[in-house]
Amino acid sequence: MDDGKAHRVSMKDVVFKADCNNPPVLRVQSGETVVFECRDAFNQTIQKSTDLPINFDMERINPATGPVFVEGAEPGDTLEVHILAIDIAKQGSCCILPGFGYLASEFPEPWTRIIPIEDGKAIFSEEVKIPINPFPGTLIVAPAEGSHGTLIPKEYGGNMDSRACTVGTIVYLPVFVKGALFGVGDVHAAQGDGEVCGTAIEIDAEVTIKLVVNKTKKIQRPQYETNEYFMTTAWGETTDDAAKIALRDMIDWLITNKGLTREEAYALCSCAVDMRISQLVDITPGVRAVLPKSIFT
Amino acid sequence: MDDGKAHRVSMKDVVFKADCNNPPVLRVQSGETVVFECRDAFNQTIQKSTDLPINFDMERINPATGPVFVEGAEPGDTLEVHILAIDIAKQGSCCILPGFGYLASEFPEPWTRIIPIEDGKAIFSEEVKIPINPFPGTLIVAPAEGSHGTLIPKEYGGNMDSRACTVGTIVYLPVFVKGALFGVGDVHAAQGDGEVCGTAIEIDAEVTIKLVVNKTKKIQRPQYETNEYFMTTAWGETTDDAAKIALRDMIDWLITNKGLTREEAYALCSCAVDMRISQLVDITPGVRAVLPKSIFT
Repeated sequence: MDDGKAHRVSMKDVVFKADCNNPPVLRVQSGETVVFECRDAFNQTIQKSTDLPINFDMERINPATGPVFVEGAEPGDTLEVHILAIDIAKQGSCCILPGFGYLASEFPEPWTRIIPIEDGKAIFSEEVKIPINPFPGTLIVAPAEGSHGTLIPKEYGGNMDSRACTVGTIVYLPVFVKGALFGVGDVHAAQGDGEVCGTAIEIDAEVTIKLVVNKTKKIQRPQYETNEYFMTTAWGETTDDAAKIALRDMIDWLITNKGLTREEAYALCSCAVDMRISQLVDITPGVRAVLPKSIFT
Repeated sequence: MDDGKAHRVSMKDVVFKADCNNPPVLRVQSGETVVFECRDAFNQTIQKSTDLPINFDMERINPATGPVFVEGAEPGDTLEVHILAIDIAKQGSCCILPGFGYLASEFPEPWTRIIPIEDGKAIFSEEVKIPINPFPGTLIVAPAEGSHGTLIPKEYGGNMDSRACTVGTIVYLPVFVKGALFGVGDVHAAQGDGEVCGTAIEIDAEVTIKLVVNKTKKIQRPQYETNEYFMTTAWGETTDDAAKIALRDMIDWLITNKGLTREEAYALCSCAVDMRISQLVDITPGVRAVLPKSIFT
């Protein structure tokens, strides 16, 4: 859209599974901007404090608005997802779901807290007000084959729940099918690294994203970048499994992009790269390795 | 010392094990300040790039300057370690030790990099300059019994390698023996969360610390606090084990100190507490839970 006017995808247009057979709801050129209207991760079923997180239809949870077909995107390319703006609703919710969360066995009862948003803060209670830092928990492209729920983060993205993916971040996603078939959802008004109870401040939102096809960058799994930081990320059966993959990716990136030896790259990660927990609860925990760009002269 | 003059402990006075039988090298009153001269973690054996990290005498590694006997400290008390200043030497080193580090099996060869400090930056190479963020990796009191190397972090502190323990932080250590028998060492000029290769920028330093006996605070393992953050921390066989202990401690702290219900505390951790990796390499990996105090109105 050369005139800078953005496309728009309605929150009626959601998918609960990433699938190369999902029909696109919009086709855009590389470089165009789209406003995605996103339902919260509970698919708008939690509206008041008496709405408990029980008897969920697990086939209709964590909706992603889309998918959008990006012209020119081919398997092996990288889709650049530039997060330009996030406008959240006036109210979100945080729930404890029986059987879900990092300490699931210690918190067996369902619990709901409705959280109003006022003046840039999430009103957790009269005494506790959390500055908002909104980001979409789910950014996803279609996998090469099969039909995959959006809930478990994988190489095609999904429920990454990384608060690094906020306004100003470029999320790089590997493309597996023609057109990429991108979707986004699960916005959190705020979340701590870990998302330990299994949900953050889940909220409806409009997310404005520029989608760019990158033909030269080749990646195996998502990466993130801001003006200040470059980040690899990965998931594993355990947090340690995830951390090792993200670390190896960062070492490879430093060798390829900065000309370091393997030992230099490993040692530099030890001295200057933060291994950060993104989430601990989405079946496969996620870790991101965060490199400050300013160390390079 | 009412006149504000600090005591001083020489770098000749070090221990390699925490032990209630170690003779104190200094006795101070609660509230007094001590300048600790600290040798680097390699016990000054790495001075030039040809000094490879091999054939270490593992009985003489990671020295802690001290121990200092704090008058009035009794088992069950908490020792407040106020980190007031850290002056680092003009040169540090980073090494890859065979058999040690997060990717030990993938980096079998010894490797050394001497790293000069210039104008507040660690000169990793001509092209890579890392802003310094000095902190003592090891802060330790004597355990109730036995003789324990300083290398593995435990409830009595030790090699916590958490860059949260920098100037402006209060480190809370549980007291197990009369006088606490505090020691400090292993200063890092800079380190990424994770310390993935097993060493950071290891460096000699002078660390200025105020030691205060707190008779009312009761803790099972170290905690950290700054003007902005309160932090629990823990170690475990895996990073997940460590994270769960630190999280439970934070939940307990929120219940006790802020009057939250158990569910509120768990959910608040999900929305606002960062679960951060401190180190991944010291036999028992360490995680800290970081709570921003500003959320409380």
